[in-house]
Amino acid sequence: MLKAILMDLDDTLYDASAAYRRGEEAAIRFGSDVLELSRQEWEEAWLRGKARTKEILKVSAAQHHRLFYIQHALEYLGRSPFEHAEEIYEAYWNAALDGMCLFDGAEEFLRAVKAKELKLGLCTDMTAATQYRKIRRLGIAKYFDAIVTSEEAGVEKPDRKMFELTLAKLEAAHNEAVMIGDNLRKDVEGAKKIGIRAIWKAGSKEVYDGEAFTCYTDGVLQSYCGL
Amino acid sequence: MLKAILMDLDDTLYDASAAYRRGEEAAIRFGSDVLELSRQEWEEAWLRGKARTKEILKVSAAQHHRLFYIQHALEYLGRSPFEHAEEIYEAYWNAALDGMCLFDGAEEFLRAVKAKELKLGLCTDMTAATQYRKIRRLGIAKYFDAIVTSEEAGVEKPDRKMFELTLAKLEAAHNEAVMIGDNLRKDVEGAKKIGIRAIWKAGSKEVYDGEAFTCYTDGVLQSYCGL
Repeated sequence: MLKAILMDLDDTLYDASAAYRRGEEAAIRFGSDVLELSRQEWEEAWLRGKARTKEILKVSAAQHHRLFYIQHALEYLGRSPFEHAEEIYEAYWNAALDGMCLFDGAEEFLRAVKAKELKLGLCTDMTAATQYRKIRRLGIAKYFDAIVTSEEAGVEKPDRKMFELTLAKLEAAHNEAVMIGDNLRKDVEGAKKIGIRAIWKAGSKEVYDGEAFTCYTDGVLQSYCGL
Repeated sequence: MLKAILMDLDDTLYDASAAYRRGEEAAIRFGSDVLELSRQEWEEAWLRGKARTKEILKVSAAQHHRLFYIQHALEYLGRSPFEHAEEIYEAYWNAALDGMCLFDGAEEFLRAVKAKELKLGLCTDMTAATQYRKIRRLGIAKYFDAIVTSEEAGVEKPDRKMFELTLAKLEAAHNEAVMIGDNLRKDVEGAKKIGIRAIWKAGSKEVYDGEAFTCYTDGVLQSYCGL
């Protein structure tokens, strides 16, 4: 019996890729301005800072922390790690959050899930404070019974700990839940591997890969509209 | 030759214990108010939330994250993890930061270190955003050449990675540096074990333990005044 739905947040409930592009553009524009660097110099430092962050923080939530992208970019430039770091960070998130809205039909979907008295849990990579901020911006806190961030779990999806911590909070067994997410490896394969049904939220960066794909998903969610 | 000084932040450069007490008092007062709970109910939940955070997050920076104390407290009460969580979190930090100031003589000490052209690095447990916020509040960003947080290192002191990442950023060898901190096990013993000289900042929660103590510190800093 279906008792609980586990959902990813970024690119599953709203267009995170577009939001991050807006954030990056704002951070590069504002950063080059306050640091008095050419756009190209700061953009190169930003990309190196981001790469360094991914390199040293690997599969932890902090690998997504834009404050580290900026700190490492400043270190690469031989400047103070504190130089305008918090301001650039805020410029990033203000732009990313500005205009952030749910995919069409997503709110109706969440409402319908609650009307069926299913438990609903967010199972999301990234640091908690950032995810709380997005959830407030999107106005969806009221639909969720639980949240698990990779910062809390200490690992990222597809690590089973992410799913199992969410299930525990929702008091649901593996076979009583379904995971919905846009990332085939992390969300879909990760859940399926430990006996949780999974549905792929299509329309993300990932390309539908015919046969290989159908082996490991229980369904494809093309759009929330008209579900 | 001494080339670099590594410093802890909390309870080494300012009175963190007092700041955290102010934060906790504000979070408990404000929290019981917005959640419509008796002070005792919310205080008990807070302590359980804090214990749960320490239990699952162990030696990672996130074990200090007050947002998790609050989230786990709300989970314990069977309430939404989002219910006023960010507001209570802000109440905590606004109160903790309010009135936060350096120990007497600490700024003169930092200035003297810079005047001697020694490199200065912060080597501190806790999440980066929180430490940046404290550093801004204390007005000491200008003295530091580098920062390493346990969120960045992925481990906490006394793990050698904390010290070695700081040394690398300061371009100093183990025998060219000294670590100053208030925690005997983490700061002093941690540094000494890998061949970095260490000075204990006295006057913290820890008690001076005569003989056992003198074995593993290179000195005691009783006060910054008149150094």
